[in-house]
This record gives sequence, C-alpha cells and structure tokens, in this order.
Amino acid sequence: MSNVIINRAETSKIESVDFENLTFGNTFTDHMLVCDFRNGQWEQPVIQPYAPFLIDPSAKIFHYGQAIFEGMKAYKDEHDDVWLFRPDQNYDRFNKSAVRLAMPEIPEEVFIDGLKQLIQIEKEWVKKGNGNSLYIRPFMIAIGSGVIAAPSTQYRFMIILSPAKSYYSGEVKVIIAEHFSRAANGGIGAAKAAGNYSAQFYPTKLANEAGFQQIIWTDDATHTKLEEAGTMNVFFRINDTLYTAPTSERILDGVTRKSLIELAARENIKVEERSVLVAELVEAAENGTLKEIFGAGTAAVVNPIVGFSFQDKYHELPKIENSFALELKSKLTGIQRKELEDTFGWTVKV
Amino acid sequence: MSNVIINRAETSKIESVDFENLTFGNTFTDHMLVCDFRNGQWEQPVIQPYAPFLIDPSAKIFHYGQAIFEGMKAYKDEHDDVWLFRPDQNYDRFNKSAVRLAMPEIPEEVFIDGLKQLIQIEKEWVKKGNGNSLYIRPFMIAIGSGVIAAPSTQYRFMIILSPAKSYYSGEVKVIIAEHFSRAANGGIGAAKAAGNYSAQFYPTKLANEAGFQQIIWTDDATHTKLEEAGTMNVFFRINDTLYTAPTSERILDGVTRKSLIELAARENIKVEERSVLVAELVEAAENGTLKEIFGAGTAAVVNPIVGFSFQDKYHELPKIENSFALELKSKLTGIQRKELEDTFGWTVKV
Repeated sequence: MSNVIINRAETSKIESVDFENLTFGNTFTDHMLVCDFRNGQWEQPVIQPYAPFLIDPSAKIFHYGQAIFEGMKAYKDEHDDVWLFRPDQNYDRFNKSAVRLAMPEIPEEVFIDGLKQLIQIEKEWVKKGNGNSLYIRPFMIAIGSGVIAAPSTQYRFMIILSPAKSYYSGEVKVIIAEHFSRAANGGIGAAKAAGNYSAQFYPTKLANEAGFQQIIWTDDATHTKLEEAGTMNVFFRINDTLYTAPTSERILDGVTRKSLIELAARENIKVEERSVLVAELVEAAENGTLKEIFGAGTAAVVNPIVGFSFQDKYHELPKIENSFALELKSKLTGIQRKELEDTFGWTVKV
Repeated sequence: MSNVIINRAETSKIESVDFENLTFGNTFTDHMLVCDFRNGQWEQPVIQPYAPFLIDPSAKIFHYGQAIFEGMKAYKDEHDDVWLFRPDQNYDRFNKSAVRLAMPEIPEEVFIDGLKQLIQIEKEWVKKGNGNSLYIRPFMIAIGSGVIAAPSTQYRFMIILSPAKSYYSGEVKVIIAEHFSRAANGGIGAAKAAGNYSAQFYPTKLANEAGFQQIIWTDDATHTKLEEAGTMNVFFRINDTLYTAPTSERILDGVTRKSLIELAARENIKVEERSVLVAELVEAAENGTLKEIFGAGTAAVVNPIVGFSFQDKYHELPKIENSFALELKSKLTGIQRKELEDTFGWTVKV
C-alpha cells in the first residue's frame, strides 16, 4: 500500500450530495484510483480527484471492446467500521476476466490494498443504516491506440466509488428468451466483460416495450435451458428445493450466487446446481409447485420475480409466506452489514 | 454538408509521415469528424484537429461496451480524384449495428456527406499508386455517464482516417475452432460491435502460440460449420466452386464478401452461399479437391490461406496456377482503384 501516490482533492463535494435521494450509479465520490499498464508492467497506482481523462480516438477500447469490470459493495457498521464482502472473490474473477479478454492480470496490492486505501480516504461517503452502501466499480480498459484488431499493449485500471441506497426495481416480471442470447459456447459469457452487456440492451428494450422488466436468458443453441436473469444469476424454487444453473462458459460465477448457495446449505434449504429446463418451469408453474424465482447479484443482492412469460403466456407466481428469497436476502445482507454473525469469514474490514 | 462546422488544424503533420513505411492503423490524418447525440438528437457535426478528448470514468462505453464501427477505404486515381467503395453498404450496416446495440441511428448527411467533406480536407493524405489507400474508421461510442447496466442517452460518432499501404500479413495458416467461438445464436455476431473483437483475442493468442496466424470460427453449438476466418468472411474453393457461409445472426454481412460474390458471378465462377462443414473441408483436403481458402475483408481485401489444422492434423493446400483468390482480388482492387471499369456502379467520387 505504501507505493500508492495520493493526490487529494482540494475540496469535497460530499455536502452537495442528497444521500436520501440517490439514483444508482450516478454519483461518484471525490477520488478515484488509477493504475496504468505500459511497457509490459503495471506502473505506480495513483489516488487522485475523480475527473474525466484524456484518451485517443483510436484507443482500442473504442474499437475492439477490451474492457472488464467488477461490482462490489462496502458497508459501515454501527461502530463506524467499513466492511467489504468477499473482495478476494471479485479479485479472482477480475483476473479470470482479464485472461479471457487477453488483458494483463492486476496485482493484489493494486486491486485489494489500493481499494482499501481509496475507501479509507472516502470513509465519510459510506453511510450507516439499512439500505446504505458504497458501490465499488473496479474496471480495466485498453488505452493503447491503433485501429488494427489486436490486443492493446497499454491498459488503465481504475476504481470509482458511488454511494448507493438499496436497489429496488419495483415488481419484476420477466420474459423467457426464445430468440436472443447473451452468451455463446466458447464465448465470454463467464467473463465480466463490457461487451456482454451491450448485447443485452436491445433484447431488454424489446422486453420492456412488451411490459417486462427483464429477460431470463436461455442457452443460445436450443433455448431450452434457463441460464441468467437480466444481468443477474437466477434461482428457481420448486416445492422446497432451490435450483440454479451450474456455472459454465456461458454463466457468470456470481459472488452473490455462490454465497446464497452456501447460506442456503447452512439454513437447511436444499439447493441443486443443475440446468433447469424451460419445460420444467412451465410445468411447475402449471401444477403449482413453482414457488419462487429470484435474481441474485451485487446491486440488488436478491431480486424477487413475480411472474414470467413464455410463448406469449404469462405465468403469475403465488404469494407465499415463507419466502426463501426474502429469508436469504435478510441473512446475507445481515452478514454484509455486520448485524448478523459472519460464520463464513466473508467480511473483510477496511 | 453545409451544416458541418470546420475548425482547421493550424499545421499539418503530413510532412513528418513516411508513407513508404506505414504500419496499418497507427498513423492518423490532421482532422477528424465528431458528432454528438444528446437530448434525443444529433448535434451539429464538427471537423476538428485530430486529438485526444476528455471522457468520464463512468462513461457507458467503458463498462457496458456500447461501441460499433465500420472499416472503409478511399483510393486516389491517376487523375487525382478520390473514390470511395460502396459507402452506402457501410452506412446501412452501421445503422443495423446501431439498432442491435440499442444505439441511435446516424443520419446519412453526417455519415456519408460528413465523410466526403472530411476526405476533401485530407485529400493530400490519399496517395496514388498500387497498394496505397486511406483507411476510414467511422465509429460510435456511448459517452453518457453512470454505472448502471442500461443503454446510454449520450453518444459520440467519429470518423478518423489512417493512410495505409497494402495489407500483407505473410503466409497465413489457420486452425479450426474446436472450442472457442466468436458469436452466439441470437447474439451480436452480425453487428460490427467492439465486443465481438475482444472475445477473439485470447483464442487468437493461443492459435498464434501454436504457430497459426488466424482461427477459422465454427458455429458455437456444434463446431461443425465453418463461419468466419479471424475478423474476415471466409471462402472455400472445392474443385471449381467457391463456397461461403450464408449471412446470419452469427456472421458479418461483409461488403468485400458480397462484392466478391457478385464479381465471381460476372467472371463465371460458380459461388454457393451455404454452410460448409468441417468434415467436408477435411475430406476435400484429403481427396485433393480443396483448391483454395481465403479470407475477405476491407483491410486485406482478399487474404489467401495456405493450410489449416483440425484435430491436431495440418492440411497444406496445393499451390495452384489459376487462383480464384488472386484473380478476384486483382479485379476487385482494379475496380476500387478505377483501373478497371466499374460495371457495378460501386465506386463513388468524393
């Protein structure tokens, strides 16, 4: 950590921020971390005032999409200590994404220690209380210039921070993808790559226009297997068992997903990691054994889904008393906020 | 065209450029065209000195990969007139890519008329003579800020220009993809989207390390159908018939590809647009009926392939006298350079 250069902002904009009325991902803190890769090595990381930066029009990011990111959150407990949730998992996944996109891996002291140092400086931006968090966005882009389709030799790693309220997206109805797909076999679906998201926007826009908030993605070859919900992993509860697709080249190895699986096991909720077929889901909806569907991801943690459409038929889910989604969300956020005991050792003090 | 604002560079860097020793895509002309989309509409386009620009760290391009581009070329004939090749095709495809990436379509007067005006200003950068051209890179990126996975509301369209020598990549040996893929069914493979390219870099790096210059991509579901070669469309000559995969959601509707198909028809070379199976290719190589393989794209025009590897077996192609690849390349570049009659009406004067 000692090798981080710190250039502090002269003034803070924190007083101008209305923390009660934050739109997700639109407000950023006073500082950011920047670390460039040049001549085959990572240069010294710098914490500096958050600001636009200069980039060449021919930078590879603009033409060939070499860009990866992570999403994480920090929480402040009642003792004013700030906690990260499983940052090692995000760090590992970031470097896996880097390899798949032919980008250099980032050292742990830049990603983890640099992040901790940045959050120390921005500690006032992490607010206590239910629903409050600091959303963390580490990302890496190709900044080398030249319009030839080959990996860049220059990269920029950055961490930016955005204060967040709890993420509530209203009632979520989903439509099952019968034509569009988010990932190919042998593709980059398992990487947290920028290009994966741009592919989803148009199908999602069509879904929105049809009255659905999100898409449940299916495998691109047959459209028979349920894979992800929007930008989240997805869980299905049939009777009292939770099902979620196994991770693969097409499916993101979500930190919330894997934490929910471990948490469910501790709570004696049965979880099976296996492909769920669209036909199974429809059958379960029709015979009344489908109890819940929910998305799992860092931003929303757990996002209950109220119904799904397939082949123009809408299946509304029942209202239930003992929701696994709400129970698991409550337990997981309790651990994240240090209100419940962390028997897993997932939380890391900044 | 009258509505383009022109801010001329004070000096030109053209005298410092060694036009005999250009690396593809690394040298840019004095000016670029910039046109921003804000508040639901395209603003006035500006031709201004080529230079880096400021962009926010949270710009959507960096996080969600909304970026598309085109590749085109301009040629100067012996009368010092400058010609574009089928710019309408690139314009149409650009807007198709825009729709698929949930980006706004660009008006023709910005893309086509703006490009012509930019090239007029940079006319000295287009050199006469065999192998010389001006490579044109129109592109659009999402510049709106905010780290929430949704389409941007602000975009920047730009055109940058790079003088080029003929593109020679040496002997090209390829390996047939048995695991990795470039596109999903229902994905963005048919769009000229930045994200498609970043997905190819790592598999291509592995191919390079194994001694191959490019990959022939297969369909991601079965890896049995031959689809593209590297970043180009691909043609196979078995006996005296050319085969190329039909365009689809997974395959780029290449301008060089479609021009070669029309040109071959005029030259009485039989072309079939149908899926070629890997098994067919191996059989044709083994029984001696496979005569040629070549890639087709704007940068190289036609790129002959000398052999391919599949399941660790390398198949060398025969040396032949009457190469369709070389004949078609010679005819097509002759039309592009105005050395041969353009019976198709493909060339457009700037």
